Amino acid sequence: MTADPVVETLDALELVDHHCHGAVTADLDRPGFESLITEGAAWPGVSPFDSPVGLAVRRHCAPVLDLPRHAPADVYLARRAELGWAEVNRRFLTAAGTGVFCVDTGYAPDRVTTPSELAGAAGAAAYEVVRLESVAEAVAAGGVEADAYAEAFRTAAWEAVRRPGVVGVKSVAAYRTGFDLDPARPRAEEVTDAARRWLARGGRLDDPVLVRHLLWTAVDLGRPLQLHTGFGDSDIRMHRADPTHLTDWLHLTAGTVPVLLLHCWPYQRQAAYLAAVFERVYLDVGLTLHHVGPARAGAVLAEALEITPFRKLLHSSDAYGVAEFHHLGALAFRHGLAGLLRERLDADELALEDALRIARWTGRENALRVYGLPDGSPDDG
Amino acid sequence: MTADPVVETLDALELVDHHCHGAVTADLDRPGFESLITEGAAWPGVSPFDSPVGLAVRRHCAPVLDLPRHAPADVYLARRAELGWAEVNRRFLTAAGTGVFCVDTGYAPDRVTTPSELAGAAGAAAYEVVRLESVAEAVAAGGVEADAYAEAFRTAAWEAVRRPGVVGVKSVAAYRTGFDLDPARPRAEEVTDAARRWLARGGRLDDPVLVRHLLWTAVDLGRPLQLHTGFGDSDIRMHRADPTHLTDWLHLTAGTVPVLLLHCWPYQRQAAYLAAVFERVYLDVGLTLHHVGPARAGAVLAEALEITPFRKLLHSSDAYGVAEFHHLGALAFRHGLAGLLRERLDADELALEDALRIARWTGRENALRVYGLPDGSPDDG
Amino acid sequence: MTADPVVETLDALELVDHHCHGAVTADLDRPGFESLITEGAAWPGVSPFDSPVGLAVRRHCAPVLDLPRHAPADVYLARRAELGWAEVNRRFLTAAGTGVFCVDTGYAPDRVTTPSELAGAAGAAAYEVVRLESVAEAVAAGGVEADAYAEAFRTAAWEAVRRPGVVGVKSVAAYRTGFDLDPARPRAEEVTDAARRWLARGGRLDDPVLVRHLLWTAVDLGRPLQLHTGFGDSDIRMHRADPTHLTDWLHLTAGTVPVLLLHCWPYQRQAAYLAAVFERVYLDVGLTLHHVGPARAGAVLAEALEITPFRKLLHSSDAYGVAEFHHLGALAFRHGLAGLLRERLDADELALEDALRIARWTGRENALRVYGLPDGSPDDG
Repeated sequence: MTADPVVETLDALELVDHHCHGAVTADLDRPGFESLITEGAAWPGVSPFDSPVGLAVRRHCAPVLDLPRHAPADVYLARRAELGWAEVNRRFLTAAGTGVFCVDTGYAPDRVTTPSELAGAAGAAAYEVVRLESVAEAVAAGGVEADAYAEAFRTAAWEAVRRPGVVGVKSVAAYRTGFDLDPARPRAEEVTDAARRWLARGGRLDDPVLVRHLLWTAVDLGRPLQLHTGFGDSDIRMHRADPTHLTDWLHLTAGTVPVLLLHCWPYQRQAAYLAAVFERVYLDVGLTLHHVGPARAGAVLAEALEITPFRKLLHSSDAYGVAEFHHLGALAFRHGLAGLLRERLDADELALEDALRIARWTGRENALRVYGLPDGSPDDG
Repeated sequence: MTADPVVETLDALELVDHHCHGAVTADLDRPGFESLITEGAAWPGVSPFDSPVGLAVRRHCAPVLDLPRHAPADVYLARRAELGWAEVNRRFLTAAGTGVFCVDTGYAPDRVTTPSELAGAAGAAAYEVVRLESVAEAVAAGGVEADAYAEAFRTAAWEAVRRPGVVGVKSVAAYRTGFDLDPARPRAEEVTDAARRWLARGGRLDDPVLVRHLLWTAVDLGRPLQLHTGFGDSDIRMHRADPTHLTDWLHLTAGTVPVLLLHCWPYQRQAAYLAAVFERVYLDVGLTLHHVGPARAGAVLAEALEITPFRKLLHSSDAYGVAEFHHLGALAFRHGLAGLLRERLDADELALEDALRIARWTGRENALRVYGLPDGSPDDG
Repeated sequence: MTADPVVETLDALELVDHHCHGAVTADLDRPGFESLITEGAAWPGVSPFDSPVGLAVRRHCAPVLDLPRHAPADVYLARRAELGWAEVNRRFLTAAGTGVFCVDTGYAPDRVTTPSELAGAAGAAAYEVVRLESVAEAVAAGGVEADAYAEAFRTAAWEAVRRPGVVGVKSVAAYRTGFDLDPARPRAEEVTDAARRWLARGGRLDDPVLVRHLLWTAVDLGRPLQLHTGFGDSDIRMHRADPTHLTDWLHLTAGTVPVLLLHCWPYQRQAAYLAAVFERVYLDVGLTLHHVGPARAGAVLAEALEITPFRKLLHSSDAYGVAEFHHLGALAFRHGLAGLLRERLDADELALEDALRIARWTGRENALRVYGLPDGSPDDG
């Protein structure tokens, strides 16, 4: 339909989705589906279908289920049920055209695909990313004395990252405390005191000292560290999830692990600044792109790329639960980036080979390099 | 001139302007007019006409006064004086095409139209919004002991909201302290102590404890609560008017009153996030749209709508003083939204019926629903 | 090639670059050049050429060196070396079409052109801006007792600004402490105490009390005060460089010196708000425009101009080191502003004479007025 080499290159590119989750392995009723396509909830009279992401699902996902574009929500969900979750997942994961998934396995309130199930359904490779808060909470749940917590967490984290297929770690510190923390590595006594309070209290790891300790433990692990920043559900205090609050910590941890800022919106320019001035900092606008939809993906990417070195932007979907989002994240990335590059080519602001390079780097090669993944067919994974 | 159904639908839609003020009922000289069209002032050599809003007035308001587009400021003001304030108000309020005005009556340094005068001039319905700071300051001015302040304020607020035609309340906490407050309801003793200090000192209600008390009293009143956020005059500390500072308070007040975030710029994305994750949160980009003018209204609306559920965006002008702004706010909303929807229709990102629904919801129906207003002709008001 | 009067006017306009630095007076090898075109550094595998500013250099600067558009980096640098630094500087400074440079002489880790050398190479006028931190650090380096510091700094600053050709002062407080400071003028004893600590410790002026003292001394000097805000290198904590943190200080210093907010990105809307509500506040998006390149300069300018009075926006390049940036900053400003104005003309949102006036004011006349410069040929300088 088009002979645009930028579109062709991006359409043909086997993306690396460097941060995502599994897809639910069960059929979903309307409340179940709606709750998975919003960072909020389905409130009376306010269907998540009546939002930008809902329009994007009806427009871009309906055809994958053999429906006309813009099919009504009820029709969409009836067809989804008719096909069954396994076929639905297979269709969207295949349609995504993603070659490699890096899967955060530490968040799964629903039963979702394992990385290998995801890879199987997609005909792709899958790797694992270890969510460090889940490791710490498992250590606490398993029973540990406060003065043994630091060592037990460290040991468990090392064991987790040494498992085959693990390529990185992740922290949701943004959800727990935000980033306006003391950047320094906490002293052992501080950690023990904080662990004592937390272990007595129970619940999620949200003590500021233990969150700092977790971030510094991540540095010790030597693996790429994914950090949720910006956009998320109502657990975040958004102004505290501005990644520039990490500046002092980034100075203190200079020369250590790659730090991958996830989501970033509405702080994509702030994240771009960090990527431009810190060697180890990378960013994506995952989660954001499918929520804003292809109609705005180009605008968000344009801000994210205003000053970002082209080696520093990655693609992720941050899809969780519905495989529509693995597809929609990939589609919005391709569509948004192609539009942006085409516009600049038409204005003669860059050469075609520059445009194609930016597409390949950001959609695939930057992630392969950061995570040290093989650049071959999925069989190589 | 156009057969675009989106433009036609928006042009024909009787908007609900859910937050505005009265128009001055006197003729205005140049300094008087200029001081009303800026959030700053008319400084030597820097006329408010030489700003985006000034260009918008000359472009879009001049024809309503029978002048050519882009008429010079002096010509514009001469014609305005010639017609007289009553005719000028009538023309702009009619041209706005607004069916319902919700009028904040608590700010009127000038003699301005009452809600019923506004309604009469516009041929529309008008309701009242009670500014709680004005209620509290009237209580103080009337004489009250510190330990009776809380109860006196509560009683006065209840009396104010029970008056016929009152549909909501408003707070300008953003102007007084910002939102980075302790989110908890203050204890009775704290309120009494703070009232003692304030009553002794006099002046505006700007004590943090009393501002918190006011916000919690608003919750008790059970009416939709309008909150000024972001853009305003030099009284604000903008970074403290970022609505995400309200997150803890929104959690604590879950399940209570609707919260309508006004203006929001430059934090429209942050406001959109809150509207997407909190059931009770709504937003508009009032005040902003006429200040940026039709030339940028679409760009600001596009950011405000990036992730916002379509049931959560409302229209307001926040016009004060000059009826030009009641018109220009409506015009910029229609123009900006029509452009945005048309662009997405042309890209096949949504269906026509979706576009028309988004127009009707955001321009009118969302407000009718939140405020419980009749959906009939102005006579129903 | 075009008969667009907006483009013609902007192309012919002798810009005032109200904030820039000198160009290096030596030939540069690849590492040397790369380190000067990024706010970060040239990291292994991440060349600064592979960034928006790198594309802009290859696209817009290569032709000035007789190379084709989009020439590869190696070809570009070889040609640059072949021509030699003096010819390269001459070409770019002439191509910039800038009539007046206001040069910050207080930052020069490399040997760079003096203002008069810059003026000579450009065929333009040049004035000097005194960086107050450099003055303070020279006072410390020269040896001073703590209790004599305030007076010695004041005297040195007065001497510096009285030199012929000095038109303003600058502070990099954003780099040293950020703007979330106590806005009040520090008491003499506080300054002495802080000076004692700083003089004992040595190093850069980064004590919060002394930074406040410097800002208040700037007010006393009575000259236009340039303040770096927002974007910069990794020394900044970006969230603390949001200019709205200056609000209380702007209130306290009402009626004193003009304050020129430099760079501003990503807080250009916040800076625009301050310019709209404070008589003395001006802004530019210097540094930003060449880093984002002509491809995004219009988008950034559109945000900067959303509510800014047209008398309040200025042009600067903030070029340092490579004369490419003096050129690219001017080019991105002309190109971005022309596109923005043309779009609004086409939409009939403003009249041609308004567009031309906005171009002349922002590109030249606002700066002449703020700094009190002669509006004549360069010979008048």
